[in-house]
Amino acid sequence: MTVSGRDELLQQRLGHRFQRPELLRRALTHRSYGAEHNERLEFLGDAVLSLAVSRLLFDRFGDSDEGDLTRVRAHLVREDSLHKAALQLHLPEVLRMSEGEAKGGGAQRASILADAMEAVIGAVYLDGGLEAAQGLVQQLFGEVITSTTAESWRKDAKTELQEWLQGRRLPVPSYRIVATRGQAHAQTFEVECAVPSLGKAQTGEGRSRRAAEQEAAQKMLALLQAEDGGRPGARD
Amino acid sequence: MTVSGRDELLQQRLGHRFQRPELLRRALTHRSYGAEHNERLEFLGDAVLSLAVSRLLFDRFGDSDEGDLTRVRAHLVREDSLHKAALQLHLPEVLRMSEGEAKGGGAQRASILADAMEAVIGAVYLDGGLEAAQGLVQQLFGEVITSTTAESWRKDAKTELQEWLQGRRLPVPSYRIVATRGQAHAQTFEVECAVPSLGKAQTGEGRSRRAAEQEAAQKMLALLQAEDGGRPGARD
Repeated sequence: MTVSGRDELLQQRLGHRFQRPELLRRALTHRSYGAEHNERLEFLGDAVLSLAVSRLLFDRFGDSDEGDLTRVRAHLVREDSLHKAALQLHLPEVLRMSEGEAKGGGAQRASILADAMEAVIGAVYLDGGLEAAQGLVQQLFGEVITSTTAESWRKDAKTELQEWLQGRRLPVPSYRIVATRGQAHAQTFEVECAVPSLGKAQTGEGRSRRAAEQEAAQKMLALLQAEDGGRPGARD
Repeated sequence: MTVSGRDELLQQRLGHRFQRPELLRRALTHRSYGAEHNERLEFLGDAVLSLAVSRLLFDRFGDSDEGDLTRVRAHLVREDSLHKAALQLHLPEVLRMSEGEAKGGGAQRASILADAMEAVIGAVYLDGGLEAAQGLVQQLFGEVITSTTAESWRKDAKTELQEWLQGRRLPVPSYRIVATRGQAHAQTFEVECAVPSLGKAQTGEGRSRRAAEQEAAQKMLALLQAEDGGRPGARD
């Protein structure tokens, strides 16, 4: 298929026809290919995605508190969600990168695809405004969002932390209430999540013990993943 | 002054007249005051702010790479910047909170004011769309952004890390190049920032040694602050 034929197909899949097709081309260009690469668009797209997802969640979960919404948002904007979306749009077929990068399997790397996905969202925003970008994000993540409940995501933080630790042959975390505040019917719980084998503890707050545990688990996970991501080569 | 007089003044300061004034009122209501509090608006406002600042930076710093833009953005959306903006708008005078919280000085707490500032940005977005919110963010942060250079922010990460450590009577960090990649004129440096007293190391990448050091320092700082923020009471 010709390049323009592929671009045409992609624009159909995106549900957006570009006024400035050079923006789309740039979004699909890895830095190994040349100076006109997609990293600045990725920076912008990251923020566009976050707002578009926030708006979808805000409208969908009218009863959920900020903590739940933040957790679901973090889940949706993670690399693996973006990677899946990139595959759904067949981005590996249209990415431009250096020969070396391509031979090394670059077009299949989750981090490269997730970055390109964000850049495409940024390009749609620059070309068609927030509404156009919102439409794309709705198309990519809308089904996941409408088919879920805030509770089902909340379950994930503790499970995910446990799996993360088990994957590294580390003991499971422990949880304990460190404080309760307020009156009987409006109590706030503060729970500590500890991973003694790593010498780390994080606390979370919530209207129930369960919610507080989930927040603490979420923070611990974020901390461990941040540290993990800082090691050379840990991301790929 | 009457409540409506104060609301009127605030809307003048915001440069936005609300179609739905209940959104503004909600944005100014701390959770201690009642069920109709501002936390969900804060969730939304956080993402609106991030996109609005990203767009300002994207347009202003046409030559800066993603790493620099991300660093400047992180700087601008921090609690202390939001706190300053809240004071500029005189938010302490219009915040609604429980008597207990008010007597405890809640209306002066940086975290409560920063959260309310985000909630107000979220309310303006819901009421008037992204353009209205973008206008407010431009008014609050535009001068800081236009009067600065990407380099001046970049300097901050290393300095800030050093100050953070010194504030805790810890030794300064050390930096060393762990890898260089690419050809002579297009090298990428990988630098490690180590804080042996805490048993921690983070790596950063950049087109120069200096840029890589800054990225490593930024990551280390984010890590240390995340751990610090996880401790009970550390935020206030």
